[in-house]
Amino acid sequence: MKLSEAETPCLLLDPDQLQRNIGMMAARCGKLGVTLRPHLKTPKSLQVAQLTVAGKAAPITVSTLREADYFAQGGYTDILCAAATTPNKLAHADKIQRETGTRVLLVADSAELVSAADTRAGALGAKFEFLIEVDCGEHRSGVGPASQELLGVARALEDASNLHPAGVMTHAGHSYGCDKADEIAAIAEEERAAAAGSAEALRKAGHDCAIVSVGSTPTVLHAKHMEGVTEARAGVYLFWDLSQVSRNICALEDIAVSVLASVIGHNTAGKSLVLDAGALALSKDISANAYLPDAKYGYVCDVETGKRFPGLSVHEVYQEHGLVPVPDESWFARLPIGSQVRVAPNHTCMTCAAYDVYNVVRGGEIVERWPRVNGW
Amino acid sequence: MKLSEAETPCLLLDPDQLQRNIGMMAARCGKLGVTLRPHLKTPKSLQVAQLTVAGKAAPITVSTLREADYFAQGGYTDILCAAATTPNKLAHADKIQRETGTRVLLVADSAELVSAADTRAGALGAKFEFLIEVDCGEHRSGVGPASQELLGVARALEDASNLHPAGVMTHAGHSYGCDKADEIAAIAEEERAAAAGSAEALRKAGHDCAIVSVGSTPTVLHAKHMEGVTEARAGVYLFWDLSQVSRNICALEDIAVSVLASVIGHNTAGKSLVLDAGALALSKDISANAYLPDAKYGYVCDVETGKRFPGLSVHEVYQEHGLVPVPDESWFARLPIGSQVRVAPNHTCMTCAAYDVYNVVRGGEIVERWPRVNGW
Repeated sequence: MKLSEAETPCLLLDPDQLQRNIGMMAARCGKLGVTLRPHLKTPKSLQVAQLTVAGKAAPITVSTLREADYFAQGGYTDILCAAATTPNKLAHADKIQRETGTRVLLVADSAELVSAADTRAGALGAKFEFLIEVDCGEHRSGVGPASQELLGVARALEDASNLHPAGVMTHAGHSYGCDKADEIAAIAEEERAAAAGSAEALRKAGHDCAIVSVGSTPTVLHAKHMEGVTEARAGVYLFWDLSQVSRNICALEDIAVSVLASVIGHNTAGKSLVLDAGALALSKDISANAYLPDAKYGYVCDVETGKRFPGLSVHEVYQEHGLVPVPDESWFARLPIGSQVRVAPNHTCMTCAAYDVYNVVRGGEIVERWPRVNGW
Repeated sequence: MKLSEAETPCLLLDPDQLQRNIGMMAARCGKLGVTLRPHLKTPKSLQVAQLTVAGKAAPITVSTLREADYFAQGGYTDILCAAATTPNKLAHADKIQRETGTRVLLVADSAELVSAADTRAGALGAKFEFLIEVDCGEHRSGVGPASQELLGVARALEDASNLHPAGVMTHAGHSYGCDKADEIAAIAEEERAAAAGSAEALRKAGHDCAIVSVGSTPTVLHAKHMEGVTEARAGVYLFWDLSQVSRNICALEDIAVSVLASVIGHNTAGKSLVLDAGALALSKDISANAYLPDAKYGYVCDVETGKRFPGLSVHEVYQEHGLVPVPDESWFARLPIGSQVRVAPNHTCMTCAAYDVYNVVRGGEIVERWPRVNGW
């Protein structure tokens, strides 16, 4: 199908750019000497996973059990579910493991959670592997690096009859708050040291620590080295977005996804184009704007070239409408009612979550449609 | 299933509160002497629609053709799709009409769109009815009330071989920017006058104008009268949210939906609860905050009583994590890891869009699961 015939809004994916992004990160992790465990919370798609990793035994990361289920049913056998898992989710994790034989790695950051999970696992007759989450400076979740609390969680895991300790993991989410390479490199080192130091402290205390997992796209790209780390997690690099452009992590032309929208009206009094892409189609995430104020709800780009129309962004969103102020009225002739634009997403993980399918585009044609899984 | 066994995050719906909200708006429109054409872009659910309107011939409103398709397949026969429809969507609208016999009312606000739609309709061998959108002060879309532009669109519709003029519609979205009853009443009157005045201007010029449609929950509730109006559209009243609480349109206890979340961690250093409801589960919409700054990403409420825990809101969201600062450490004992809370949504239309099902709750049990339709 030609793009011009597509019903809008819809999500477009450039498979060649995706492939370049995949190659870049694979080369980067190869150079760092760590296994890449890509975070598939960004694409949530089997087809993207297949391009991203070599074979279904390769390790992957997800953010929800629905994703874990989807990828396990799709044949993936080593899945890290990277948020702390409470007992009410263990029946689902157990079902995935039993049905597919997949290893589902779970996460905990407290002895309290470990103890409750062990009780629930016992009731289910199930066994689970847990990583301990270590706070490397984001201060969202996780125990302090090499802390007494860390050792307490490790002891709780060792005392648990139905749980097995698999290692440690960190997430340097605070790297998204920087736009300078040296600051990101410093956070990357903080993350590496937190993970590797925690692994060392555990081993010194007599605990196993096979997996030492770090991650965030910016820190993986800016780390000087990854000594003591076994694997790196990164996801947003697959598609990129204006948030990452705003932090100088990628360039606008690296972005592999966009929202195809139609001009449904000309607001001549307000000198704006009206698009059929609003708050649901673009999301209300404006993470980029702290460093790139004119990102707004997304850059408005030419459908064919993918290049931004100079100065055009979606400034206001309603549920199904987006308003794009134009500098002068010549834009109404340039982008008549019924014409199409692409919107480059502010934050790709949020934007993609509104869609159940990627329209894969080559040469102005939708050549394939790849489903994605959403929700919980 | 008991709520305590539910996998989180998930969306809860209180059917008794929904029923009260439905009764309130039905009574209100009865008193105003207008037909209610409820906007189902909020619930996007056949089960909710069935409770909201009496029978499938009753008029309803939707925001996308996917919703129109879903409700038409579900038997509804009079559907207004309330955003301007460009030619690339007419094949879908035609398919809906042919397959179901449903009347799909479309919207245009320019002669340019009407002309392009007529050409496309001709190519499809299809006929469509169009309402003309009139700008009643929101300045998003629509032609000026009783303007030359309005008459131009009407003439274009009359000249079109495959389109039929069905009337006018307005949307007073700017009423969401007020929290005072008299200001909202003034906007309601502005909206009524714009719609009724436009209908009169059309009739004077010899055009038909059967439908005179206005809408926004606040204006329908605060209008003094609706002279010259035939129908009112409103949607958010079905579920309510903190945005509407913040504008004094409803009370917190009127809200019929909430997100069930689990406490997955205690951030003791940062004195916060960590929830498994983040940016995707709650949305990043913070519309309420302009008038209710502590709404943040949602009020944190007791699962059983639905009452807010004093002072608790979700202050920070990550893709799958939410942080809830607590005033003191006693909250960690009160809400231990693994315990559940409800989050009252900031903007219900955005929050619900992340879920594919409503968990209908009575007496602490999930008694039914009602699907909803998302996307385009």
